[in-house]
Amino acid sequence: MLTIDKFYDARRELSKVLRHTPLIHAPRFSEKSGANVYIKPENLQVTGSFKVRGAYYKIAKLSPEDKKRGVIACSAGNHAQGVALGSQVNNIKAKIFVPSTAPISKVEATKRYGAEVVLVDGIYDDAYAAACAEVEKTGAVFVHPFNDPEIIAGQGTIGLEILEELPDAEAVIVPIGGGGLAAGIGMAVKSLNPSCKVYGVQAAGAPSMAESYRKGEVVSGKTVKTFADGIAVKQPGDVTYELCKKYLDDIVTVSDDEIAAAILMLMEGQKLVAEGAGATGLAALMFGKLPVKGKKVVCLVSGGNIDVTILSRVINRGLVTSGRKSELNIELLDRPGELTRVSSIISQLGANVVSVNHARGNIDNDINGCFLQIAMETRDFEHFEEIKKALRAAGYSVGK
Amino acid sequence: MLTIDKFYDARRELSKVLRHTPLIHAPRFSEKSGANVYIKPENLQVTGSFKVRGAYYKIAKLSPEDKKRGVIACSAGNHAQGVALGSQVNNIKAKIFVPSTAPISKVEATKRYGAEVVLVDGIYDDAYAAACAEVEKTGAVFVHPFNDPEIIAGQGTIGLEILEELPDAEAVIVPIGGGGLAAGIGMAVKSLNPSCKVYGVQAAGAPSMAESYRKGEVVSGKTVKTFADGIAVKQPGDVTYELCKKYLDDIVTVSDDEIAAAILMLMEGQKLVAEGAGATGLAALMFGKLPVKGKKVVCLVSGGNIDVTILSRVINRGLVTSGRKSELNIELLDRPGELTRVSSIISQLGANVVSVNHARGNIDNDINGCFLQIAMETRDFEHFEEIKKALRAAGYSVGK
Repeated sequence: MLTIDKFYDARRELSKVLRHTPLIHAPRFSEKSGANVYIKPENLQVTGSFKVRGAYYKIAKLSPEDKKRGVIACSAGNHAQGVALGSQVNNIKAKIFVPSTAPISKVEATKRYGAEVVLVDGIYDDAYAAACAEVEKTGAVFVHPFNDPEIIAGQGTIGLEILEELPDAEAVIVPIGGGGLAAGIGMAVKSLNPSCKVYGVQAAGAPSMAESYRKGEVVSGKTVKTFADGIAVKQPGDVTYELCKKYLDDIVTVSDDEIAAAILMLMEGQKLVAEGAGATGLAALMFGKLPVKGKKVVCLVSGGNIDVTILSRVINRGLVTSGRKSELNIELLDRPGELTRVSSIISQLGANVVSVNHARGNIDNDINGCFLQIAMETRDFEHFEEIKKALRAAGYSVGK
Repeated sequence: MLTIDKFYDARRELSKVLRHTPLIHAPRFSEKSGANVYIKPENLQVTGSFKVRGAYYKIAKLSPEDKKRGVIACSAGNHAQGVALGSQVNNIKAKIFVPSTAPISKVEATKRYGAEVVLVDGIYDDAYAAACAEVEKTGAVFVHPFNDPEIIAGQGTIGLEILEELPDAEAVIVPIGGGGLAAGIGMAVKSLNPSCKVYGVQAAGAPSMAESYRKGEVVSGKTVKTFADGIAVKQPGDVTYELCKKYLDDIVTVSDDEIAAAILMLMEGQKLVAEGAGATGLAALMFGKLPVKGKKVVCLVSGGNIDVTILSRVINRGLVTSGRKSELNIELLDRPGELTRVSSIISQLGANVVSVNHARGNIDNDINGCFLQIAMETRDFEHFEEIKKALRAAGYSVGK
């Protein structure tokens, strides 16, 4: 039985390792959503995500015999780092099974905490099978990423912290993958203040808890498709499902593009890096998915362990969708001097050319003509329009 | 005369608007530098930089008559936002002269705080001239970005906060542009604990304070060339120079590439976004420019107002220099099927192709040959070498 005193016990245990993550007011998200938004920045937590809370508490509460046997876990990311740190501090052995497709950076971070990492060919399910086989063989303790009362109590300590720092919060927004975090925070918040709303947010490409919540029973998603790998879960746990059903006021979903926009605004407005899963709550706020206008809201940014390769794509996409990276297609005669003329018009208007491509031999081209493709850094859509207008005024045929 | 009680007065005034920015332990920078590194994250400060401290304090201390006249400032960035916020809270008029080359995002942020922004054609010096003319005309108070006792005391409050939170800090590292921040922190830290070292860091492309410090008199840089716009200053102030000479233990410089590497590690390791100026201290630590091995060190990250366009370039550069973005040049016969063969070899080894270019008609090519340029996402340099080896084993001539 999970009771609220377990949360306070978790809090006491966790005080040994946690970094305090004070709330940060978020003016731009407030402006955009019409709510008064505070961020709980668990991306600044040790290991870069909240996952260390549950994993550490679970490991700290093991019996001396279990501790001797060591722990086993399976994860491609944040849970792995949490288990590794928890094991290191408690001085026990950890063996973590990781799918070979996991990003090198997360594998390296896990090793840095002293855990043994076993790379398993294939995806998460293959690594999970290998972990289970090892548990059977060795009798070591399996640390589940979410469907476990101690894990849930550990994650729920975030709920205690939020309401202590902002007792008049009217809503708390949390991302959902397997549901451990939402179950814990939901139970903690509702126990302290039943009138405070708790909302869950899932990626539209991995909506199994949202669907289970609607349907009234645990359902399993067919496919999982989102860049928010931290919440790309096929099926919620039965324990976490029951708690989410009981304590959450609603569960909504956001698209990958909405998540990307939230990541970009978080970087620009708050100077914080979030991973996909971490930005879902802010995405829900930005795009008006929740009834929180005029309310005092705390939005959890659950983690920041995003691969920079992905981050770079997110930024690029954001630049294009906000008019700060633009591409021109100009039809021109293939003769000397044309590129000079075109580029001088562009530079006079303050845009910065980043790449140029001459496309020839296209079937719809004049035999003497070619297409000039120019990628530029522009200020916004207006600036881009201004440049197109100037080129047209100079007699060029500008496409797109 | 600037005395330390002014710093405490500034602190009391500032408590009305400042966000508390607790120190954050930085394991990766510690590992890399051999010091025990803490970050003072002023990128998380309101307005995204420390500049609000000095500007707000200066404005708060104006006489009622001066307040009625309003203030004038000149800045392309953080100082503008600080003055705008300070004026908004104190309910006085602010007119801020901004060079037209300033990034739109900073102009927008300044307007958001209610200041009047006057865009001046040209660079900083043109905007400065326009601001001076306006001061002459209107009698409004000019708020200097650094060479002013109140500004220095405001920035110096950071020194008080650092030593209160970490009384046994052995060194404090601060970026230097005009020197207001370094003068303030230097004086505050040395007044509280003379044995704590204070180091300044400048961009190698804008080293005027470092040169003045060496030479023993204020010297002016000929050119200023760095992407760290927040510290791209041609000449330090006389007031700030005297204080830096008195209180700093040394001033070192870092290159733009070193700054970029620090920005990337700060994002990956700490989930924080810094602007160029903000990351100079961490760059100095990463690249061993300071004698702090084994010491407990606080490194100020002074601000995070970086244009995402620039950030995107910093990330790209970091990806290339760490082997995570790689480019292949393959000479091949221009016939059907070659691209399929090459790309299947690459994908089997787990790399991800992001762009392909067929270059033909090069003077050194076989008339039947062409060059295939492939940009890929790779794991690291080793991974890239593995791919090149496999392609060579398959009979391809791989360049670079």
